Amino acid sequence: MTTITAAVAGASGYVGGEVLRTLLAHPNVEIGALTAASSAGSTLGEHQPHLVPLADRVLEPTTAEVLAGHDVVFLGLPHGTSAAIAAQLGDDTLVIDCGADFRLQSADDWETFYGGDHAGTWPYGLPELPGQRDVLAGAKRIAVPGCFPTASTLTIMPALAAGLIAPDITVVAPTGASGAGKSLKPHLLGSEMMGQASAYGVGGVHRHTPEIEQNLELVSGTRPTVSFTPILAPMSRGILATVSAPALDGVTAEDVRAAYVKAYADEPFIHVLPEGLWPQTKAVLGANMLHVQATLDPRARKVIAIGAMDNLAKGTAGGAIQSMNIALGLPETTGLTTIGVAP
Amino acid sequence: MTTITAAVAGASGYVGGEVLRTLLAHPNVEIGALTAASSAGSTLGEHQPHLVPLADRVLEPTTAEVLAGHDVVFLGLPHGTSAAIAAQLGDDTLVIDCGADFRLQSADDWETFYGGDHAGTWPYGLPELPGQRDVLAGAKRIAVPGCFPTASTLTIMPALAAGLIAPDITVVAPTGASGAGKSLKPHLLGSEMMGQASAYGVGGVHRHTPEIEQNLELVSGTRPTVSFTPILAPMSRGILATVSAPALDGVTAEDVRAAYVKAYADEPFIHVLPEGLWPQTKAVLGANMLHVQATLDPRARKVIAIGAMDNLAKGTAGGAIQSMNIALGLPETTGLTTIGVAP
Amino acid sequence: MTTITAAVAGASGYVGGEVLRTLLAHPNVEIGALTAASSAGSTLGEHQPHLVPLADRVLEPTTAEVLAGHDVVFLGLPHGTSAAIAAQLGDDTLVIDCGADFRLQSADDWETFYGGDHAGTWPYGLPELPGQRDVLAGAKRIAVPGCFPTASTLTIMPALAAGLIAPDITVVAPTGASGAGKSLKPHLLGSEMMGQASAYGVGGVHRHTPEIEQNLELVSGTRPTVSFTPILAPMSRGILATVSAPALDGVTAEDVRAAYVKAYADEPFIHVLPEGLWPQTKAVLGANMLHVQATLDPRARKVIAIGAMDNLAKGTAGGAIQSMNIALGLPETTGLTTIGVAP
Amino acid sequence: MTTITAAVAGASGYVGGEVLRTLLAHPNVEIGALTAASSAGSTLGEHQPHLVPLADRVLEPTTAEVLAGHDVVFLGLPHGTSAAIAAQLGDDTLVIDCGADFRLQSADDWETFYGGDHAGTWPYGLPELPGQRDVLAGAKRIAVPGCFPTASTLTIMPALAAGLIAPDITVVAPTGASGAGKSLKPHLLGSEMMGQASAYGVGGVHRHTPEIEQNLELVSGTRPTVSFTPILAPMSRGILATVSAPALDGVTAEDVRAAYVKAYADEPFIHVLPEGLWPQTKAVLGANMLHVQATLDPRARKVIAIGAMDNLAKGTAGGAIQSMNIALGLPETTGLTTIGVAP
Repeated sequence: MTTITAAVAGASGYVGGEVLRTLLAHPNVEIGALTAASSAGSTLGEHQPHLVPLADRVLEPTTAEVLAGHDVVFLGLPHGTSAAIAAQLGDDTLVIDCGADFRLQSADDWETFYGGDHAGTWPYGLPELPGQRDVLAGAKRIAVPGCFPTASTLTIMPALAAGLIAPDITVVAPTGASGAGKSLKPHLLGSEMMGQASAYGVGGVHRHTPEIEQNLELVSGTRPTVSFTPILAPMSRGILATVSAPALDGVTAEDVRAAYVKAYADEPFIHVLPEGLWPQTKAVLGANMLHVQATLDPRARKVIAIGAMDNLAKGTAGGAIQSMNIALGLPETTGLTTIGVAP
Repeated sequence: MTTITAAVAGASGYVGGEVLRTLLAHPNVEIGALTAASSAGSTLGEHQPHLVPLADRVLEPTTAEVLAGHDVVFLGLPHGTSAAIAAQLGDDTLVIDCGADFRLQSADDWETFYGGDHAGTWPYGLPELPGQRDVLAGAKRIAVPGCFPTASTLTIMPALAAGLIAPDITVVAPTGASGAGKSLKPHLLGSEMMGQASAYGVGGVHRHTPEIEQNLELVSGTRPTVSFTPILAPMSRGILATVSAPALDGVTAEDVRAAYVKAYADEPFIHVLPEGLWPQTKAVLGANMLHVQATLDPRARKVIAIGAMDNLAKGTAGGAIQSMNIALGLPETTGLTTIGVAP
Repeated sequence: MTTITAAVAGASGYVGGEVLRTLLAHPNVEIGALTAASSAGSTLGEHQPHLVPLADRVLEPTTAEVLAGHDVVFLGLPHGTSAAIAAQLGDDTLVIDCGADFRLQSADDWETFYGGDHAGTWPYGLPELPGQRDVLAGAKRIAVPGCFPTASTLTIMPALAAGLIAPDITVVAPTGASGAGKSLKPHLLGSEMMGQASAYGVGGVHRHTPEIEQNLELVSGTRPTVSFTPILAPMSRGILATVSAPALDGVTAEDVRAAYVKAYADEPFIHVLPEGLWPQTKAVLGANMLHVQATLDPRARKVIAIGAMDNLAKGTAGGAIQSMNIALGLPETTGLTTIGVAP
Repeated sequence: MTTITAAVAGASGYVGGEVLRTLLAHPNVEIGALTAASSAGSTLGEHQPHLVPLADRVLEPTTAEVLAGHDVVFLGLPHGTSAAIAAQLGDDTLVIDCGADFRLQSADDWETFYGGDHAGTWPYGLPELPGQRDVLAGAKRIAVPGCFPTASTLTIMPALAAGLIAPDITVVAPTGASGAGKSLKPHLLGSEMMGQASAYGVGGVHRHTPEIEQNLELVSGTRPTVSFTPILAPMSRGILATVSAPALDGVTAEDVRAAYVKAYADEPFIHVLPEGLWPQTKAVLGANMLHVQATLDPRARKVIAIGAMDNLAKGTAGGAIQSMNIALGLPETTGLTTIGVAP
């Protein structure tokens, strides 16, 4: 059996922790260097008590020297810091960036939403996009999508691809706190979050907006309009992407249902729920899985599609390892679970 | 000081409990009979341990005999049961129905969304609607709005009234569990709800849809299209109404902001947040208050408005008592707090 | 009606916010200066969106100059900072310290548990302790008890006072996150807290331990042994003090019940639940109230007493204002609610 | 590779769901019949949306006919119903009862705590008890322990076995809602549970009390006194067993630490945390794992030990499959994860 060595930069954070949790279940992976910034020198067990097999591992500083020499390097770093590290890692290393630096194709979008110079564009790690598995096969650099773009894109893609909707997409997406990482900000405190729903990044300013547009343009050939509103909900993990768009004339509920069933019949990590059931985020907790359901609102003439996903799993670490499998020529599903932890 | 006697039918449920909690702070109200269905004969303390001053009160059966003779009777009963009780209470009693039976004006809408015969239409207890305070003054029957219609209507009303948006409204509204009452259904169990977001009533089938349309028609003169998706979020109380609609040509963010500030300048129970702040549901927990903010998404050309409300407070019991005050000629704000319990 | 002016230092924090929320309902209080440290210059609305009537108030720096000239000054400051401020406020001002600096009588305990020099001892703001109302009447300085000591003391006091138990007390107390304030620490993040119970300060090292001992010594005349373990539970507010102690020979369940009923018959802010009902923290959410129940475990020969309290309300701000009422000669219950917000 | 067929009775409940989730990861198990009571005839997907690979399986009625012919049968049934089914399944079938019927050795204890006739005693599925692996090897009937007894026993066992404490044990254990199953009871509703801690079964009446005593008697040779108080905390899963007992004279903190490290050095499913770290329930979410830490409170002279466990995983389904592995002669750790899903 092939053995792949993998290093993880940013191992003390939520993304790094989930990458490690997923890699620990991967039969082909041997976990190598673990690095951190201010936490270098401490053990992983102090930061990730759930990862018992790695509890005694000491975190090293995040440098190219430490990360070099592995088959795969996962970067779970703050935005803007991946390029410098990646430049020092040769093409014999598969570098998988869980940050935003290389996701966008448009330098204009980058400057508008992130500011500063655009670092470039890497192969985009969303295998379910049309033609994307070919792009990822053999890739040496992969940009892992944002969690909202993964959920939003896959939730509305079949309706758009089948020509059932106008390209005028509204996404409202409650999500858990872990998407914000371990940032020490007052609004992320448990005291604030528990029992509370709140909106943020309202009015088209959230950085995932152009990424959703870019994905959907790849699907339909034209840039759609996307209104995206994220909502912070009192849970640790999970996204419930609630997507609506005007139904084109003549479209029926049966058309909608059929489009989803057909589009995702062979996708290992997307489950179209039986008719009448709607997605629940805990059904995919910890799993590399999107649950989706869609229908037509006949009065409002809108297609409504809902997708449930774990932002850290399929939304980040699971999706990253799915792309890694493709890039390395392993079976795409290796080491990935489709089963959530519920209730 | 005027003293009003008030009876509460359905005192063991969440609506009844919140009506009582609010009435206990009302300086003019003396609480009379408390009734229940299967819980008749038990004490209120067994069902509502927070209402200590009423802990020893024994629940009586819900009959017109028990409820008669009070100045005000609040009905917190299952849908379809209020009409029979109300018919036996004379016009010397103000009957305030917290259920749905008398909310809709259209018998067709009733039959489509609720089924069965339409019981009729009572003065609608949303004082902030245009002209509605006049309707409520002196009324002897009041239909308390649904919690989603209150939140959704008040959240988008200024933009619609000011002619800033097309009548094509999308509402996505995370809400807490108490809106479903004390129903013993598996999906309402704590094990299921905690850590989970899920959608229900998707595709225009939720019964609050025609009620939102009816309200907005009153505002703009034409029936809008409303796509409404409620989301069950892991919290006991709270609605975060996330409303969007296409901005008309030339509308600016400043127009949007100005419309809200102007529309709600004199409303005692609506607070337009300072620019840059967005509503949080805990800020209104237990308060008869809606917090609202709105802006323009200039890329998607959508007006996005967000309102936070406590479904049991301003969404039900607080709104009911606000309407009661108007009907009885008391100052509208008597006994009602605008201050939430946070964090 | 008497009007009292009150200033609040630390108005941007959770303690300051709850003091203000409670004062806003007090008929005799006019709210004066609001101060903060790093947040000085910003408006209260940015930090406490629930306190709408004070939303536009600008926070001033926390100095004696700003705080002087009020009838009452509430200090919600970090430990160790109250003494310097208080020293500059004359005896014409009632200073109520919500911090720990002046709670302990023993300088040794202070040094063991807090370190550094003991600032002194102020009248202790727990009116339900024997003789304490006399101590507080006319006081010009009040040390508000810690939240765990209030809950733990009042939960076991009747059994100890009645001579039913040995002075060997075990307290295990799940609590919400707000007791830790708005501290930006990783373990207080929503991502960590939601869905999780964890222990901290285990092994007798929590600073509230000697304060519980001090209170119980006042009750029984001898210093008891107290084993205290706090547990961080996934809620914003609330303490469920679970207290056990060996029952003395011959003690029956009826003795236990009778001791509690008798001890608290006249206490306005303690409710002994009806037999068979056990306390729930939401029943006292936002209320100046402790719910308590006790029984005998006949097999283990232990008295088990459970008390539910809101750490910010009766545990801090409510208790502080109850003591203020006594100190100023107002009726003790003025402006305080006994009714929680549930569900 | 050996292939074992396994049937699950009660597949629509939480215990059945977790058994299936765990079995789906077991390399030697083929899942056979799934049965239910009132849900027979429906698909598993309607009840357990997270178990996608089994979504289309139709639930059969719970009868011996349906369950017969499998190598292993797991029973997740209401108390009192397992005996009749088990009697019809021959000794060629390993029957693993996740209910209480066969846990207690003492018929008196059964009658006191459960009432009715004692069904008997089966080999007790807690492999970490002294000598218990020998008892389980080759067993054909296994009684899976209660979740509180597993957590409580393993949390205090090393201190008791090493002779560090008096046999006077106090257990206070916050737990999540799933331990109560999918019971439709008001206090288990999300509206009630979220944001709330409450106690139940107080005063030595909880049925798990004699089971903890029975386990500890096996450890120390004498029946200890156990005071056990469970607390319902707002989470779906998890137990935080907080156990204290009087330290014997001369016992030091180092003695306590050493006893735990030594006792559990070779246990694959118990992790003694590094000094200074205390258990967190999410670190073991979904894992067959107990995290434990212990220390001495030198003032109160108590040993305090804290254990974190997932009530459905190590507390029920994981523990059941661990015992199954032993009974069938498979490596004990087969198919079981030690890694929790956090945050």
